[in-house]
Amino acid sequence: MNGKTLLERLRKGDIPVVLERLAGDEGMETEALVEALLEGRAVVPSNLSHAMERPCVVGGGSRVKVNANLGTSSDYAGLDDELAKLKAAVDAGADAVMDLSTGGPIDEVRKAVVAASPVPVGTVPIYQAAVRAQEERGSIVAITEEDIFRAVEDHCASGVDFITVHCGVTMGVLETLKANPRVADIVSRGGAFLAGWILHNERENPLYEQFDRLLEIAHAFDAALSLGDGFRPGCVADATDRAQIQELIVLGELAERARKAGVQVMIEGPGHVPLDQIASNIALEKRLCHGAPFYVLGPIVTDVAPGYDHITAAIGGALAAFHGADFLCYVTPSEHLRLPSPEDVWDGVMASRIAAHAADLAKGIPGALHWDRRMARHRKCLDWEGQIREAIDPERARRLRESSRPRDEEVCTMCSEFCAIRTVREAGFQAKEGIS
Amino acid sequence: MNGKTLLERLRKGDIPVVLERLAGDEGMETEALVEALLEGRAVVPSNLSHAMERPCVVGGGSRVKVNANLGTSSDYAGLDDELAKLKAAVDAGADAVMDLSTGGPIDEVRKAVVAASPVPVGTVPIYQAAVRAQEERGSIVAITEEDIFRAVEDHCASGVDFITVHCGVTMGVLETLKANPRVADIVSRGGAFLAGWILHNERENPLYEQFDRLLEIAHAFDAALSLGDGFRPGCVADATDRAQIQELIVLGELAERARKAGVQVMIEGPGHVPLDQIASNIALEKRLCHGAPFYVLGPIVTDVAPGYDHITAAIGGALAAFHGADFLCYVTPSEHLRLPSPEDVWDGVMASRIAAHAADLAKGIPGALHWDRRMARHRKCLDWEGQIREAIDPERARRLRESSRPRDEEVCTMCSEFCAIRTVREAGFQAKEGIS
Repeated sequence: MNGKTLLERLRKGDIPVVLERLAGDEGMETEALVEALLEGRAVVPSNLSHAMERPCVVGGGSRVKVNANLGTSSDYAGLDDELAKLKAAVDAGADAVMDLSTGGPIDEVRKAVVAASPVPVGTVPIYQAAVRAQEERGSIVAITEEDIFRAVEDHCASGVDFITVHCGVTMGVLETLKANPRVADIVSRGGAFLAGWILHNERENPLYEQFDRLLEIAHAFDAALSLGDGFRPGCVADATDRAQIQELIVLGELAERARKAGVQVMIEGPGHVPLDQIASNIALEKRLCHGAPFYVLGPIVTDVAPGYDHITAAIGGALAAFHGADFLCYVTPSEHLRLPSPEDVWDGVMASRIAAHAADLAKGIPGALHWDRRMARHRKCLDWEGQIREAIDPERARRLRESSRPRDEEVCTMCSEFCAIRTVREAGFQAKEGIS
Repeated sequence: MNGKTLLERLRKGDIPVVLERLAGDEGMETEALVEALLEGRAVVPSNLSHAMERPCVVGGGSRVKVNANLGTSSDYAGLDDELAKLKAAVDAGADAVMDLSTGGPIDEVRKAVVAASPVPVGTVPIYQAAVRAQEERGSIVAITEEDIFRAVEDHCASGVDFITVHCGVTMGVLETLKANPRVADIVSRGGAFLAGWILHNERENPLYEQFDRLLEIAHAFDAALSLGDGFRPGCVADATDRAQIQELIVLGELAERARKAGVQVMIEGPGHVPLDQIASNIALEKRLCHGAPFYVLGPIVTDVAPGYDHITAAIGGALAAFHGADFLCYVTPSEHLRLPSPEDVWDGVMASRIAAHAADLAKGIPGALHWDRRMARHRKCLDWEGQIREAIDPERARRLRESSRPRDEEVCTMCSEFCAIRTVREAGFQAKEGIS
């Protein structure tokens, strides 16, 4: 470990080779990527001790990225289950994963996930501090400052590429929340732990008060900070309220301090947001946090669809990404109901990738529309193997087609011989574009 | 049959009792609904000979409605299958269904669907004309004018509440399409049949040329017209092009003629539309068609996700509805791959209902947000039976929860004892709002 973070290297004009490859993959000039990183509009989370196959750029006009949350709870705490979920996430195309374990062999799971993951790994160290306090002292509010910073250091030392830290859960923002009641109060686990701690101990959040200490640790390992939104709304009625925005102002100030210290930083965002407030949420984050990458959870656009929250999140995520959110945290069909299964992880990643790609193509991200054009041309030619090959989930597309074979293999069973595409072709109307 | 259409009755100040009930259900004043119907901003599709349990308002500021497409193809042409899909659609909460059958006992299926459906039923008579021409004369392009108008009359006489008629597939718009090549040409079945017919016969589309004859039939049964978009884009690269908009101009003109004749009318829209073009598509339709209800198919926001097109359509549908689309035609996971199963129908309706509700609550439709608030309060109280009861699909929510029981029944297996909501409660932070 040479102690030089990516930001510090770039400031000296020392550009790691990997950035050229990443820029190339994004259809960007390396200079543009470096500029975005220097200005804090992009991050490349990559712990100095984590060698990974597929690092990625978040923000700065790159393709929108997708994160999959993994992790145990005390009801389901198997290492093999977590590795199965990691595999599902990576195979489905997640750009990053987070290990949010709170049950069983937490250290073992984290280390195994970091070792096995080809993509950046994030964690939430406060979870571990809470679990330890609960185990050792019988209560979450008995977390000590040492528990918190020890967990942060342990996680960074295991090679974690980005850590969620709820530094904006301050006594001040908590006062704002008290003065402005909500339907659902606090639904962030980290936010709840720290709010509980503040209320019980009548002291300021150590992650805020000792932010420089946090920066020192992150700096030593070049772990990126993901400033958590402990006051994110837990229902659409609470969206974009004073507590949420007050916290965002704090996060923006801290983001500047992180950058100055040579530590990459992104901002976490909601959560539950109705469609009419999504654009303004993104605009606010970009303004208040000086362009820092915005990492949103969903957002889900209605509260009433447990069992389908991958869909509510795909709706909100697509719109958020279109308006400038950089990183989508997936939501699975099991959200609000249970710990996700590997199948849920798969479905969640697919739904988020669809949202991300829909935004990319609408924003004109280089190359995004080419994928759709290839698919459209295969459709026009009734080339089924081509359609399956280009599908975001080729196996699923093949399974559905093969479950329902038409007598005439050129068409599908939706229209059978009354296929519109064939009708047009037989009418002698050939698309000049389609056959080029 | 008294020959008086709903529009004609309203013009004379004769307000059917059912409108009071429908207005009440929508949280509207009856006068506002009547005004919207008179101005053509809303329709209540209801054939004079179709007694149904659940008629509905489309447009005029009412809740966004959802249609489910049913129907046979020649590969799968069973009456029982169609009735199973109808049951799935209605049980899942569809506001209307369309029978798009093109195989097997078409007349029998349509009559059975109309008889069994508690919600409005739509059809596309040109499909039947094409099937008959294929059977009797060996070719779709051998459709005669009599085939077309006979099919329209047969369908209206069977009690169909709205018919899709592709009156905008004109020689003129076809010239626009020829001059402006597309990737995917024409993907509407009705559009393809009529374009093929025009090209082969070198004559104008009878549904356009003899629009008054069409109006006479629709008027006799008070069937609403749904002016089909035969030139809707079949891929995102083709969206909002000259042919599409040229056809929309024609449809707007015809919509005015329909209203003058006392026939209710709505406009069908795309299809495949990238996120950045959805708002402008809705605004164009509203302007060019003088506020007529807009009935969109999806729209799907990327072409690359066969197997997940209920999700791509939910994204586009939510945004379209938020910007003013009135009626969402569902898309199922089987779109582009096969005829949907009853399970696909269920999933498609649910995805579209989520999209519709997300738009309703963001637009402030009366009562929409109350549902979300009830759900949020049950979450806040960890009231699982309440959450399941309020879920858009209670059975699915219950199944997921029961598949993964926590040791402590108050929480769920996602966070187990580290439940944020319980942590906040135990910290003594009570939401004033949540317990009221």
